[in-house]
Parts: sequence; structure tokens; C-alpha cells
Amino acid sequence: MPKKIINKLRIKRKAAPKTSQTVFTPPGTISYVGVHREGEVVTETIAYGPEHYEKHDKIVYSLPNDYVKWYNLDGIHDIEKLKKIGKRFDIHPLLLEDVANTTQRPKTEFYPNYVFQCIKMISYDEKDHDIEQEQVSIILNEHEVVTFQEQTGDVFGSVRSRIENNHGRIRTSDSDYLFYALIDSVLDHYFIAIEKIGDYLDVLEDEIFNDPEKESLNKVQNNKRVLINLRRSVYPLRESISRLLKEESRFLQPQTKAYFQDAYDHCIQIIETIESYREINTGLKDMYLSSVSHKMNQIMQVLTIISSIFIPMTFLAGIYGMNFEHIPELTWEHGYMYFWIICAVMFVGLIVFFKFKKWL
Amino acid sequence: MPKKIINKLRIKRKAAPKTSQTVFTPPGTISYVGVHREGEVVTETIAYGPEHYEKHDKIVYSLPNDYVKWYNLDGIHDIEKLKKIGKRFDIHPLLLEDVANTTQRPKTEFYPNYVFQCIKMISYDEKDHDIEQEQVSIILNEHEVVTFQEQTGDVFGSVRSRIENNHGRIRTSDSDYLFYALIDSVLDHYFIAIEKIGDYLDVLEDEIFNDPEKESLNKVQNNKRVLINLRRSVYPLRESISRLLKEESRFLQPQTKAYFQDAYDHCIQIIETIESYREINTGLKDMYLSSVSHKMNQIMQVLTIISSIFIPMTFLAGIYGMNFEHIPELTWEHGYMYFWIICAVMFVGLIVFFKFKKWL
Amino acid sequence: MPKKIINKLRIKRKAAPKTSQTVFTPPGTISYVGVHREGEVVTETIAYGPEHYEKHDKIVYSLPNDYVKWYNLDGIHDIEKLKKIGKRFDIHPLLLEDVANTTQRPKTEFYPNYVFQCIKMISYDEKDHDIEQEQVSIILNEHEVVTFQEQTGDVFGSVRSRIENNHGRIRTSDSDYLFYALIDSVLDHYFIAIEKIGDYLDVLEDEIFNDPEKESLNKVQNNKRVLINLRRSVYPLRESISRLLKEESRFLQPQTKAYFQDAYDHCIQIIETIESYREINTGLKDMYLSSVSHKMNQIMQVLTIISSIFIPMTFLAGIYGMNFEHIPELTWEHGYMYFWIICAVMFVGLIVFFKFKKWL
Amino acid sequence: MPKKIINKLRIKRKAAPKTSQTVFTPPGTISYVGVHREGEVVTETIAYGPEHYEKHDKIVYSLPNDYVKWYNLDGIHDIEKLKKIGKRFDIHPLLLEDVANTTQRPKTEFYPNYVFQCIKMISYDEKDHDIEQEQVSIILNEHEVVTFQEQTGDVFGSVRSRIENNHGRIRTSDSDYLFYALIDSVLDHYFIAIEKIGDYLDVLEDEIFNDPEKESLNKVQNNKRVLINLRRSVYPLRESISRLLKEESRFLQPQTKAYFQDAYDHCIQIIETIESYREINTGLKDMYLSSVSHKMNQIMQVLTIISSIFIPMTFLAGIYGMNFEHIPELTWEHGYMYFWIICAVMFVGLIVFFKFKKWL
Amino acid sequence: MPKKIINKLRIKRKAAPKTSQTVFTPPGTISYVGVHREGEVVTETIAYGPEHYEKHDKIVYSLPNDYVKWYNLDGIHDIEKLKKIGKRFDIHPLLLEDVANTTQRPKTEFYPNYVFQCIKMISYDEKDHDIEQEQVSIILNEHEVVTFQEQTGDVFGSVRSRIENNHGRIRTSDSDYLFYALIDSVLDHYFIAIEKIGDYLDVLEDEIFNDPEKESLNKVQNNKRVLINLRRSVYPLRESISRLLKEESRFLQPQTKAYFQDAYDHCIQIIETIESYREINTGLKDMYLSSVSHKMNQIMQVLTIISSIFIPMTFLAGIYGMNFEHIPELTWEHGYMYFWIICAVMFVGLIVFFKFKKWL
Repeated sequence: MPKKIINKLRIKRKAAPKTSQTVFTPPGTISYVGVHREGEVVTETIAYGPEHYEKHDKIVYSLPNDYVKWYNLDGIHDIEKLKKIGKRFDIHPLLLEDVANTTQRPKTEFYPNYVFQCIKMISYDEKDHDIEQEQVSIILNEHEVVTFQEQTGDVFGSVRSRIENNHGRIRTSDSDYLFYALIDSVLDHYFIAIEKIGDYLDVLEDEIFNDPEKESLNKVQNNKRVLINLRRSVYPLRESISRLLKEESRFLQPQTKAYFQDAYDHCIQIIETIESYREINTGLKDMYLSSVSHKMNQIMQVLTIISSIFIPMTFLAGIYGMNFEHIPELTWEHGYMYFWIICAVMFVGLIVFFKFKKWL
Repeated sequence: MPKKIINKLRIKRKAAPKTSQTVFTPPGTISYVGVHREGEVVTETIAYGPEHYEKHDKIVYSLPNDYVKWYNLDGIHDIEKLKKIGKRFDIHPLLLEDVANTTQRPKTEFYPNYVFQCIKMISYDEKDHDIEQEQVSIILNEHEVVTFQEQTGDVFGSVRSRIENNHGRIRTSDSDYLFYALIDSVLDHYFIAIEKIGDYLDVLEDEIFNDPEKESLNKVQNNKRVLINLRRSVYPLRESISRLLKEESRFLQPQTKAYFQDAYDHCIQIIETIESYREINTGLKDMYLSSVSHKMNQIMQVLTIISSIFIPMTFLAGIYGMNFEHIPELTWEHGYMYFWIICAVMFVGLIVFFKFKKWL
Repeated sequence: MPKKIINKLRIKRKAAPKTSQTVFTPPGTISYVGVHREGEVVTETIAYGPEHYEKHDKIVYSLPNDYVKWYNLDGIHDIEKLKKIGKRFDIHPLLLEDVANTTQRPKTEFYPNYVFQCIKMISYDEKDHDIEQEQVSIILNEHEVVTFQEQTGDVFGSVRSRIENNHGRIRTSDSDYLFYALIDSVLDHYFIAIEKIGDYLDVLEDEIFNDPEKESLNKVQNNKRVLINLRRSVYPLRESISRLLKEESRFLQPQTKAYFQDAYDHCIQIIETIESYREINTGLKDMYLSSVSHKMNQIMQVLTIISSIFIPMTFLAGIYGMNFEHIPELTWEHGYMYFWIICAVMFVGLIVFFKFKKWL
Repeated sequence: MPKKIINKLRIKRKAAPKTSQTVFTPPGTISYVGVHREGEVVTETIAYGPEHYEKHDKIVYSLPNDYVKWYNLDGIHDIEKLKKIGKRFDIHPLLLEDVANTTQRPKTEFYPNYVFQCIKMISYDEKDHDIEQEQVSIILNEHEVVTFQEQTGDVFGSVRSRIENNHGRIRTSDSDYLFYALIDSVLDHYFIAIEKIGDYLDVLEDEIFNDPEKESLNKVQNNKRVLINLRRSVYPLRESISRLLKEESRFLQPQTKAYFQDAYDHCIQIIETIESYREINTGLKDMYLSSVSHKMNQIMQVLTIISSIFIPMTFLAGIYGMNFEHIPELTWEHGYMYFWIICAVMFVGLIVFFKFKKWL
Repeated sequence: MPKKIINKLRIKRKAAPKTSQTVFTPPGTISYVGVHREGEVVTETIAYGPEHYEKHDKIVYSLPNDYVKWYNLDGIHDIEKLKKIGKRFDIHPLLLEDVANTTQRPKTEFYPNYVFQCIKMISYDEKDHDIEQEQVSIILNEHEVVTFQEQTGDVFGSVRSRIENNHGRIRTSDSDYLFYALIDSVLDHYFIAIEKIGDYLDVLEDEIFNDPEKESLNKVQNNKRVLINLRRSVYPLRESISRLLKEESRFLQPQTKAYFQDAYDHCIQIIETIESYREINTGLKDMYLSSVSHKMNQIMQVLTIISSIFIPMTFLAGIYGMNFEHIPELTWEHGYMYFWIICAVMFVGLIVFFKFKKWL
């Protein structure tokens, strides 16, 4: 098991986005809800066919019709840009509002001109040992896929390289396979994150068993939050993929269904693992409480044993420290020795008693 | 995070309304069930069209037929007024009874002449840091919407301003869009309230972790009540909006459905957040109990350490305070020094033992 | 809040009826299962029409056909009487067995000649602050309703007075409205009982928070039993009313359906309240355990502080009570004063330490 | 309440049967899985018609066709006998395997030539205060019922006596009514067992509240096991009876359905009671933990009070036992009296403090 | 009960396989995910008919068409071999990927040319007292069955011997019966494992009740993990077998359905047992906490009793050790005897008090 897994489980966000930001605007008003961001939106166009591949660092609409085109935007805080793209692809204002709102619940919507998919992308940051969450909105139409991301950096590296190197069947397939490949790539990174969480739970269990600290329960509560958060990202995804499987759309070809069935299975597996981890995490709470109470018991035992041994002997010593004029024992020749003998008998007797009670 | 969020989570009501007030009346008898209120009912009429806007501080029925009219009543304790309006809009007596009963469960009813919607309005009071709950009943028919509220003051400010300033598509739409806009506005304020509760839970978690007080668990129990209450307001709303989506009514135009779908998604998101908060709140309870037991352990450790160190030494001192005639040690020249050496050895030995046990 | 709500939540029954009493009889054998009762069965006939009202203190079958007749029996221990009535209304032996068995689960049965409804009547006794439960069986056929109760005294007072005073629409309606009115009256009394339980939970929460006694948890366990019991009475009722709404019967007229819809809503509201109370009651258990452990902590703190302060000082006093021949400090001129100074320093030091640790 | 209910709740079985015994045999191989038994299988044939009744202590196939015949076997360890009967009634080998396997889950199977019912028979042993469980398999075909039991002794005594004494409608009905009567008799004994468990839970609650012993929680855990076991016996029974109600079979006559509906209701009632008892049992666990911690608190209080009172006074006595040359108080004339006065003041002060804190 | 059941419940795996290994490959890429393994894949072909049986230690495709052929592979790390077999049986690349991925969720897939079944094989190792888990993938087509296993050694010994010895109906049946026999054999070993777990829970309960150790709760948490793991293996199996029962496939003959129905029942029984064990395991946690707190209480009682008895007496001794010039009692002739009498009275009084409180 690696030395360093996760310091403390958390889903990293620079600041909690506030949904209340959009409350006083009419529905369909597009406004960015998310971690504050400035600067230029990074855009990218990848176009390919069985025999062709080209990549541009900007949005290029003027590419041949028979290429599959993938338009990618890293940054959804530039509302004007969103609106322009929305117009080009004929996106409903309510959907554009969802694209710009990073607190959107994952969902799939079928429109006559496109399929809309909102999904939460999870990535594990190997350097900081953090789990990062980001919202991705995907628009699929004939030969075209548009992806909207919050930040630069994503989990689509393997998809890009498969397109570039003509690896697998992606270059010979249509945009719906690209659409699937993106979703599948997101799901794959859920597996990585979940595996890290599993390792972390193992390490935490050892820590709690061997050396529980006050911080430990805090970590358990934190895991609870993270697992709740992940569950809320994946549960709606199951419905989404189930709809992609069942509903008819001219953008989804029948031969791609087998792939979505596979993605659906992965989704179920992720959900089941998260549920297991939630139960294991609950067990950690019980273990912590028990570990702490075990430690407490040990301390109490030491106190009890020392007190029980010395308090009676101190009483005995107190007696022969009294100043009564007539204490016959004090004048006995071997009085002091007898005192020590009585003390020794009491001492040994109590030790035996505690041994018998298994407290020592 | 703001300095002051919520003192103590509660849903403010001047007095708990008693449903038992209506028990001995026949069904369909309209009687006010709610916080005691006196004084005039405040009424308002807003009428608008694409090119037109007017507002009156009373109910005005004599407005042109092609205007969309919104009649608003702040106060449902005036039964006579309710009956008059009920007659004008042909409202079923059982529904009027529901309007006047502020303990009514949120619901949607389809009648031939109107659609009835009962909803719980939640608003966060920035000044007192309180969450307030109020029942709103909405009647929708052709070109007309009637709203019944318990108190003056509501969450419809943004709707009013959008009508007045012709912002968004509200002025060009029919009464069903107004109906939607009102429900959407209520849902938006749920988001605000829930966000405040989320902030409050974070603050409470810090408090419990760092400095748990007896009051803390009371707050957790209180949160439980508030979250149960909110859940009971939102769960039926989901069914309601689902029925608005599915059932046919000549008052709900097809193009408005997309908006209700959006409201439905928001509703689901609110429910999921409430459920998450309920789980987090349960975790707070565990953290509190653990924090308290941690504090207890620390106290016990101090007691144990001090007792364990001094009780044996006190016994030793007691021995040489005895008045036996023949205690040889007492006459030794360095007896007193030897006593101190033995004490020091015991002291250091126990300290080392406790260090080893990680109790110090 | 009233001074006296409920002493201890309980559902009063003079003795638990034993279902095992009927075990060794063939199915369809009518035998009374319930609290032991003797004496005459009290019967009553109320007949009415839009223009007519009469009441008899016995069962009178010879009334005009166009009257609505309500036959009421207080007492189901007289099996012969039950059989006679069963014959008159052509009741299936298995149903008569259910009527006589007070442990029957609430249910609705549709027979060609009548509709059968079994329901649990809850009433709050203002004098003894008790909740009482009683089984009522109702038979509905054309123009006739028969009710079977366990005891004299019921929750139908308001129905009787509405019939007598021609209040509401009951006199102008048929027997199905009477049937509804009886069920509605039972539901209304659930609301009263539930309100009392809510008040009681508030009082108990205060008691547990401020002054938890050993008895408190017993009360919480008791509430659990009562709420389980109530739930078991209301859950099947929901199914029952749902069947009354959905299934066709010539005894239930379409215009009465709106009223049953209303009763159904009330039923849901009762169930939701009971569920909330169950959760709040569970929270009370946690609060109790925490309150008790808080009290324990306070006691431990006092013990720890006093012990920690005086044990080291007692050791010091013990030293100078020793009888070594050469203890130089004893001969110092200000030795005694120095001793007091050391004690004072230790005392103050420990107080400051405890203040710092927030244990004082 | 009877003096002696149940010592310790348990379901008596001489030894746990091992399902693994059959693991290495091909499916359909009939082998006995159950408590080891030897000796002859006890068989019995009861044949009856409206006017006729006869009973034989062996299996007799040669009885008139229009009689209803009930063949009963006490003992399923004699595989050869089972196979012979299986052949006579044309029973599927997989079913015969189920008959011989006492760990079989209750179920109903419809075959063209018969209906198969497997059920768990619960009986309360009045002498040993034990609950005993036994598997009964029932085969129903035209005019014939076959029952297979594990042991001699069953719960069908009342059915036998009703047949013999022509009590109720059993003699005038066909074999499907006998089939129902057997199932109903089993259900009746569930009620008896459950009632005993209810009484036991009450007694245990009193014991735990007044005088919790270490054994108590063991009993609670035991109850949990028993209730889980019962639930596992009854839940599948509900499905079974529901299938008997819904599915068509030429062996089940329409007029018997009303009786199965009644059995179904009883089944639901048993399940609900078991669920309630499970919740009450969980509450007992909480009560136990609280009772124990209450006792602990009382002990701690006594320790704290005695220590807090005497430790400071002992310190005071220690001071005036010191041997400093100059302790002025020692030479005061009333020094000893003053000492007692100070002690008395401390004593009373601490008592008042503890009274104020409600620890005394 | 056997002396040695299970040391510590665990599901043995040499190393946790990492699903993340396959993350960066395109879907349909076959790569081995599992415990690291090297060396040759062990293969085996068993062919049989009613009159015929032959066995080869390699894959032999050239056998007569009317034989049933079972091809078995122990080892799925050799991707090339997998691909070759995949080509021979026309297996979809996504399925081959599942075969090679040992973290695959159990599932059934119907393809035109074959039925695919993935299942988790559980076996109890009698020597090490371990439970081992291994993934088996089964392909069924006309007259042929292919099984893919992770390791050498499986639970199919009884199936092999039944084929070899022509025991039961396996030799006279087609490949679908072999398919069933393999699944049934896997289920049988679940029963064995579950039985061992049941025995282990009993032993653990005794251990926790009589002598709870810190390790005990760790074992309980471990059981939780194992039971979660088993549940995750069996739940999907229920769905799988249910699909085998319901869906039409030309490879599954109608007469085999009765066998799958039997397997389905076993599956339900396994699930119910696992759920029961989960609840019993949760109960063990409560018992542990209670046992530990019981032990703590006993220790506290000893401390309290000894302290309460000797602390007041030590105070008394301290008084008469004071050096006041005028302590009249010191000069009384029988002062020392009176002192002992007072001590004895206090001692007896406290003992009686503790007896009365039932602390002794």
C-alpha cells in the first residue's frame, strides 16, 4: 500500500459556489454560478475522420461536414461566449443556464436538435492527494460534440490520445461514440477516486484501531460528507445512462447501445462500492468510540489498582501515627515489622484479586 | 463565511397553529387555522399585457379580458372575504377550507375551472437570522392568478419587479407562466434557506469539535426538527410539480412545461440537499458525543496521573509518621534524604510509565 | 402551553386482549376478543331525511325506506345480538368474526350487499390525560349505516349534532356521506391526539434537557410503543381510503369521492406527523443519553479538581508529619509559613491550570 | 401476567441442521437435512365426507373416491417412504428434495397435478416455555391432502377434532378447505407464540429498567435472533398466500378464496406485530445501556461526594499532624475545637453545594 | 461445534486487484485485472453423451457434434489465449474485457450466439479456515459450455464426478443442464461458506459476552466487510437467475427452467441468511460495547467501595495524629479502643449501605 494516500478526504473547491446568486433573476437568465474565475476562456477544436485528424486552439466551425468535430471550452464564466455558442447550436436558454450553473444536478435531456448531458467529473490529484470535482456539460448532435468545463485540465487525456493515435475504434465511429467515450472516461476516473478512498478507509481503520486521536472522528465525518457528495453525483448518472439506453434519438446509433450498457454496469458498480464504503465508514465511527472507551478503561484500571492498594495501607499507617497515650502495638518490640508484614499481605492479596478478575 | 449566520436554527411561528380548532365543524366549513392575526386583509391587483402594466391596492375585477390579472391577498383570517372570492372564482368549499388552514399539506388539485396549488413559502430573515414559513395558496385560471398568503411580506418581489420592468418573458406570457414564476420564486428561496442551513451546519461542526457545550446537542436536535419540517414541505411539492407536468389542463400551455421540468429538477435538488443535511446532522450528534467523551477522558487522565503519583508517596510519608518505638530508619542519619530519593524515583518511574502509555 | 398535558403517554386499555382466545375455534366462529365486558349492549337508531329527524334508544328496523338510518351498537361482547344483526344485513360470518375481534387490522371490504370498514377510533380523555383506543366496524348499504363499538362513548358527537341540528349538508345527503362523516370524525380525533403527543414531546424534551431522570428514558420507550401502535392503526387506513376512492361500488356516489379525497389527504398528513414524531422521539433518546453523560462529566470534574488539589498538599503535610530525627525544615523558624506558601502556590497553580483547560 | 412466561427466548432445535449435507449430491437427489432422527415414521390416514369419518394408523390408499383423504407423515428421514409417496402422487423430484430438507424456505408451487405448500410450523411448549419450529410440507390434489412433518406432535389438533366431531363446515367441504384449515391452524399458533413473546418483552423491559444484569443484553440479542427467524418464516408465507389468492388452480375452489383472504390478513398482522416487536426490542437495548450508565452514575456520585468531603478535611488534619517546631495554632487553648468547627463548616458547605447541584 | 472454525473472517485475495489498471485503455481493450499471476494457463476439455465420456488436458475443438463439450480455462491472465477463444466462440470484445476483469459485477447477457454468465465463486478452505473468492465466467451455446477461472482449483468437483460416473441426469441432458449444474454448484458452496460464518458468529458472540477483547470489535468490523462483499456477489446473481428464468433463449430448454427456479430459491435463501447475519453482527457490536462498559462498572465499583470505606477512616486516624496540645480524647484510657469501635461501625455501616444498593 502506498505510503501517502490521502491526507484528509475532501472534495476540493476553492470556494463553495452559491446557488442563491441566481435567485433574483428570471428563469432562463444565464449567469455563472461557481468558484470565482477570471481570464480568458480556453477553447479547442478537434476534428477527425477515419483518415483525418486536426486540432485547433480555438473554435473553428468551418470544417468539412463529414468530420466528427469536438468543440471544448475550459471556462463557463464568460456568459457572452456561452450565448454565442448557444445560438450556433440552438440550445434552449434554460439549458444554457444549467451549463453556467456548476451546482446543476447531473441529467440528460433529449431535444430535437441535440442531446444534452450534464455530468460531474471527478479527478484524483496525485500531487496534492486531493479529489477534485468539476461539472462538464456535453452537447451531442450529428457529427458534433460540444463540452463545457469549469477549469482547464480534465480527464479526457486518454480520449484525445486515442483520437490522435487512431487507437481503438474511435476514429471510425461517429460523434455518438465520442459522446460515450467522454462519459466512459469520467466513469473511469470515478473508479480511481473510489479506489483511493478505499485505501484511505483501510489506513484510517488501522489508525483508529491502534492510536485513535480526537481528529479521527472528524475524518470519519468528513468521509461521510465526501461519500454523500459522490453518491449525489453518481445516482442521477445512473438514471441518465438508463435514459440514453432506453430513449430513441437519431443521434444515438444502435451499435453504440452495447457501450452504454457497459457504462451503465460500471455506474452500478460505482454506486455499490460507494454504498459499501458508507457502511464501512459508519463502522469506523463505532470502532473509534470503542477504541476511545477501551483506552479510558485502561486508565481507570491503573487508577483503581493503585488506589485500592495504597488507600487501605495509608489508613493503617495513619493509625500508628496517632498520638493516643495507650496504643499497645507501638510499644511491641517487633511492632514495626508486623506492620510491614500486614502491608505485604494486603498488597499481595489485592494483586491476586486483580489478577483473578483479569484486571491486571 | 459571514460572522453571523443563524443563532439557532428554527422555523419561526408566533404560535403553533392547532389543527384541532376545526375538528368539531362539518367538512367544508371554512375556518381560519393559524397564528392569531387581526386587522385588515391587505389586497393587491396587478394587471399586465405585453404593452401594459397597472397596479391597484385593492381587488379590481373590472379589468380588460386580455390582461393577465394577479390578485394577491395578505391575510386569510377574514373568512367573509375568502367566501366572496371563493364565489367569484367558483372555488369548491373543501378547497377554501384548505386555503384557510395553514397546516394544509402542499398539494395540487385540477378542477374544471381552475388549478389549485398549495405551497409552503420559506424565507430567510436577514435581520433576525430566522427562517420563516408561510402557506401560499394559488388559484390559476384563464388569464387570472389568485394568491392567498398568511402575512404581509413575501418572496415574490423579483416577480413583481420583472412584471413592472418588463424583464424576461413574463409580460409576453399568459397566466400559466406567472403561476410558474411564483412557484419558481418559492423554490429559489428554499435554496437560500438551505444554503444558510449548510453554513450553519459547518459552524456548528466547528463548535462541536472544538468546544462542545451542553447546548450543542440541543441545537442538533433542533436542526433535526427543522429539516424534518422542510422535508415535509418539499416532498409533497415534488409530487405536485410532477402532476403539473403530467396531467392535461387547458390552463397549462405546452411551452410552459419546459419550465415546470426545470422547477421539478430544482425540487429534486432541494430534497437531495435536505437529505444530505439530515445525514450530516446525524453525524454531528456522533461527533458531539465523542467530543464530550474525549473531554471526559482528558479529565480522567489528569486525575489518574496525580492520584497514582501521590497516593503511594503519601503512604510512604504516613509510614515514617508512625509512632512505633522502634523504627530503625528514623534514626538513620540520612533517612530523610533517602526518603526523598525514593519519592523522586517513584515520581520519575510513574511519569515514564505514563509517557510510555501515551497518557501524558 | 397547558400545565398538564399527558403524564405518561399510553394507550389505555383495561387489559390486553388476547388473540389466542380464538385459536382453537373453526374460522367463521364469532367470538368476542377484547377487554372483558359485561352488561347490556347499548343500541341506538338515528333516522333522518332532509325534512325529518328521529332517534330511538334501540334498534328499529321498521322505518320508512327513504330515510337514512344509522344503527349504532356500543358493545360487541353479546355474540347472539351480533349474529341477529349479521343475519338482518346478510354479513359474511368471517366479517362478523372480525367485528367481534378487537385486535382486527383496519381494512375495507367490498361485498355485493354492503361495504365493510374496520377502523381504530382514538380519543383523548381530557380528564385523565389518556389516549384511548377502540375498534369501530362500519357497515354501509343503501340508506343504512351500522356501527359496532367496543364501549359506550365515542367520537361521533359532532356527527350526531350535525344531523340533529341540520348543520352542513349531512341531512340532504345519502348514507355514503354519513359513512364518510364517521370516518372523517375518527380522523379528526387522530389530529387531536397527535397534537397532544406533539405537546408532550416538547415538554419531555425540556425535562430531558434540564433535569433528566431515570424515568425519562422509560417515557421515551413508551412513546415509541404508542407511536408504533398509532402507526399500525393509520397505515392500513390509508390503503382503505385509497380503495374507497378507487373501487366502484353502488353504495358510494361519485360526488362523495371529493370528500374521501380530503380524508385521504388528512390520513397522509397524520402518517407524516407520526413519522416525524418517531424521529423526534429517537432524538430524545440521544439527548437523554447525552444529558446524563453531561451530568456525569460535571461530577467527575468536581472530583478531579478537589482530588488533584488536595492530594499533593496532603502528601506535603504527610512529609512534615514524619518522625525522622533529622528533618532540617522542621527546625527552621518560618518553616510552617513556608509550608503554607508552597501550598498556596500549588493551589493557585492548579486552579489556573483548570481554568486554562476550561474545566472550571 | 403469568408468573412464568419464557425463560429465555429461543427457538428450540436439538441441533442445527446443516444445509451443506446435500451439497455434493446432484439436484433432485432426495436426502434428509435436519435434526438427526431415527425410528419408524408415524403415519395416519383420515378420510371423511359429510356423513362419514374414519381414521387409520397407516397410509390407506384404497378408500372411496368421494371421500376427502388426509394422509399425514410424522418423519421425513425415511427417504424410501418419501420416494414411494412421491411416486403415488407424482411429485417432482426437486419438490421431494425440498420436503426432506428442513431448511427449505416457505413457498407455494403450482403443478398440473397438485399444489405444493411448504410452511414453518411454530408451537409454544407450555411445559418448557419454549418455542418450537418444525417444517410442514403440504400436497393438495383433488379430494386428497398429504402432510409431511419432521416430528410427531403438531398444531393440527383442532382440525382433527373439527373433522371428527363435524364441527364447522369442514366435513361438508372439499380438500381445498382442509388445506386452508391446516394453514390457518399454523397461523393461529404464530399468534400464540407472538403473544408470548410480547409478554416476555414486557417482563424483560421491567427487569432491565429495575435491575439490569449483564445477562439482560444477551437476552435482547437473543430476541433479535428469534424475531429475525420468525420474520424469515412469515414473510415468504405472505407471498405464498398471495399466490394462492391470485393464481388459478383447479384444486382451489372460488368459495375458498374468502378464507385465504382472511389468512392473508392474519399473515399481515403477524408480520406487523413482529416488526413492532423488533423495534421495541431495539428500544430495550437502549434502555439497558442507559440503565447501566445510570447505575454507574450513582456509584460515581457516592465516590465523588465522600472523596470531596473527606479529602480536604484529611489535608487539614495532616497539617496539624506536622512536626514543625513553631505551629502557633497547636498551642492555642481551643485549637482542637476550632479545628472541629472548620471541619464542620466544610462538611456542611459541601453538603449544601451537592444538594444545590442535585447530586444528593 | 468444531474446535476450529474461522480465525478471523476474511475473504482471501493475495492482493486487491486495481480496476484503475484499465482506465486509460479504450473500451473493448482486453487487459487482465486481478491478482498478479504468471505461468501457463491450465486448460481442460470434457466431452460426454449418454453413452460416452472423454477428458483431455487441453482444449480440443475437434469432437463429434452431438457430444456436450465443456472447455475449462484456469487462468485469464493470458490475453492472447482469451482472444483466440473469443474468436472461436464469436465473443463480443466488451464481454472478453469483462472476462479478464476480476472485479466485474455478476451479470447475465443474452447474445444471439451464446449466453454469458459472470459469477463469483466462493469456497471455504478447510485447511486455512479461509473463505476464498474467485470470478468465473461461463459461455453457453449449443452443446458447448466454456468456463474461465482465475486460479486452478474450483468448486466443480461434484459436477465432474457426476459426469464421469454418469450420476444423476447430467449425461442425458444438454449443455444448458451443465450450465445450470455449474451455477448450482457455486450456490451450494455459498451455503457452506455461510454456514461457517454462522458458526463463527456464534463463537464470537460467546467470546464477546464472556471475555471481550479490544480485538473483538475489529473482528465485528471485519465481518461487516465480508458480509457486504458477499452480499454484493449474491444480489446481482438473483437478478441474473431471474433473467435466465424469464428471458427466451434457444440455448435454454423449457425443462431446465424448473432447475433454475430451484437455483433462484436458493439464491433468495442465501440473501436472507446474509441479511440476518448482518443484523446479528450489528447486535454483536452493541454487545461488545455493553460488555466493555459492564467490566468498567465492576472496576469502578471496587474503587468506589474501597475509597468510600477507607477515606473517612483515614481522616479519623489523621485527627488523632494531630499535635494539638489539648486533644482530650488522646488521654482517655480506652481512647484507642473507642477509635477502633468507631472505625468498625463505619466499616460495617458502609458495607451494609453498599449491600443495600446492590453494589456488592
